[in-house]
Amino acid sequence: MDVSLPAVLSAADSLALRYGPAAPPAGGPWNEHISLLLSHRSVRGYRPDALPSGTLEALVAAAQSAATSSNLQTWSVIAVTDPAKKAELAKVAANQRHIEQCPLFLVWVADISRNQRLGAEEGLTLEVIPYQETFLVAAIDAALAAQNATVAAESLGLSCVYIGALRNNPREVARIVGLPSGAFGVFGMCVGYASAAGATEVKPRLPQDVVVHHETYDATGESGHRKAYDALLQSFSARHGMAIDTWTRRVINRMGKIAALSGRDKLVSTLNAMGFGLK
Amino acid sequence: MDVSLPAVLSAADSLALRYGPAAPPAGGPWNEHISLLLSHRSVRGYRPDALPSGTLEALVAAAQSAATSSNLQTWSVIAVTDPAKKAELAKVAANQRHIEQCPLFLVWVADISRNQRLGAEEGLTLEVIPYQETFLVAAIDAALAAQNATVAAESLGLSCVYIGALRNNPREVARIVGLPSGAFGVFGMCVGYASAAGATEVKPRLPQDVVVHHETYDATGESGHRKAYDALLQSFSARHGMAIDTWTRRVINRMGKIAALSGRDKLVSTLNAMGFGLK
Repeated sequence: MDVSLPAVLSAADSLALRYGPAAPPAGGPWNEHISLLLSHRSVRGYRPDALPSGTLEALVAAAQSAATSSNLQTWSVIAVTDPAKKAELAKVAANQRHIEQCPLFLVWVADISRNQRLGAEEGLTLEVIPYQETFLVAAIDAALAAQNATVAAESLGLSCVYIGALRNNPREVARIVGLPSGAFGVFGMCVGYASAAGATEVKPRLPQDVVVHHETYDATGESGHRKAYDALLQSFSARHGMAIDTWTRRVINRMGKIAALSGRDKLVSTLNAMGFGLK
Repeated sequence: MDVSLPAVLSAADSLALRYGPAAPPAGGPWNEHISLLLSHRSVRGYRPDALPSGTLEALVAAAQSAATSSNLQTWSVIAVTDPAKKAELAKVAANQRHIEQCPLFLVWVADISRNQRLGAEEGLTLEVIPYQETFLVAAIDAALAAQNATVAAESLGLSCVYIGALRNNPREVARIVGLPSGAFGVFGMCVGYASAAGATEVKPRLPQDVVVHHETYDATGESGHRKAYDALLQSFSARHGMAIDTWTRRVINRMGKIAALSGRDKLVSTLNAMGFGLK
């Protein structure tokens, strides 16, 4: 089933939406794939419409085609469509309503349990399991896979949003979707068709000069760039009726006080209880 | 500059290359974006040819368009083209020659130093900084960004490979590219044109049934799928003159003994020394 492609914006238009006046000059390499990537928006409102048959398989094939450290494939994904389960997961994630609205909710799992089962069947202890490095590899594997699934979904006219708030209570997530020891829901993802209320603009990002460093890290000029970005994000927020207006205030609200972690300050003991060593 | 697109394979051909006989049926949604994602190969041999002007900016725009937790943008990227620096980085990464060969080497950085500088300039302590959750967010942000850059690069006919071995000695990486406290090179990435020797086949992955779970995690049938995948990967390895033949042996070689971590068993103390708390 060939699916028509999203509208292709020019480099100049795409870069202006993503960076405002700080956009780098257009004129470099450009094609419809890059246009698709730049058009990403996180969507928090969905129509109930079901996904076409075969959509999950296409997203998973894209996800599995991402790189994975040493081909260990230390990730899994739980596809949740059951309304009762979605409601339970929404409750973990501070009652985000879009988790219940979307037709498909994905729980992306950092999963070393499969490798552990392999070791057990072969009669071997895998010494590398109880290390921070192993957890990190599994989380990165899951992230690379999830991002490919996002790109595939958006190419089909679907929208997505990552749900980090599953980490507010990872053990409850594990209970809801039946994860074994060594499997951790690192984030969720809504997939579906954006509702009229859910459709949003492309969100501006920090200027490239802040994020890219040539040969050596160099934060010169960062303060000035931040002030300009604050102004850009303030007008974006005003257009969308959002409360927190500048990037500076956003960072302070999110990182200033431990309460903002919503329970994620207990992540180390949670991970240890869930079968991950963090040596 | 509009760049011609890579060849578009059909769903049936793409899925057969990625899964062998265990491929899910074609017939679901399909387009040239998904075809591109499924065609990914990690490439470990590069021609010296320079990249077209504007390539880095296009890759970074794609990277910055990926989702980022609460828009915190806790990542940076160091673009390394200096042969002396690439040689130093290759030495950290077990002398992988492709790091010296490729015209552009990217060091993807989990970066909370920018947010720390913001806090310092605003006269505030960001209480959330010294937590495992914050490091995890930064590593995931970097991974989502890097994967978008990979997709953009491959859409331009370039090839990439992730280099996790930068984590064999993160403090040496930090010295080479001048990272401040709170900035950690989570992985590297070669970018360039595949040489004849570097060109490879699509590597088969585990069957979808092993990785995807519906509503609830279910490892039934996993053993049988693993045996079939072992055989598939064995014939892939034989075609490529690779030593380790089955997936089972690959996992055991990589996860069985601590020595295989090549120093990454010290990651916790390294991260603490580099300005990350892991409470």
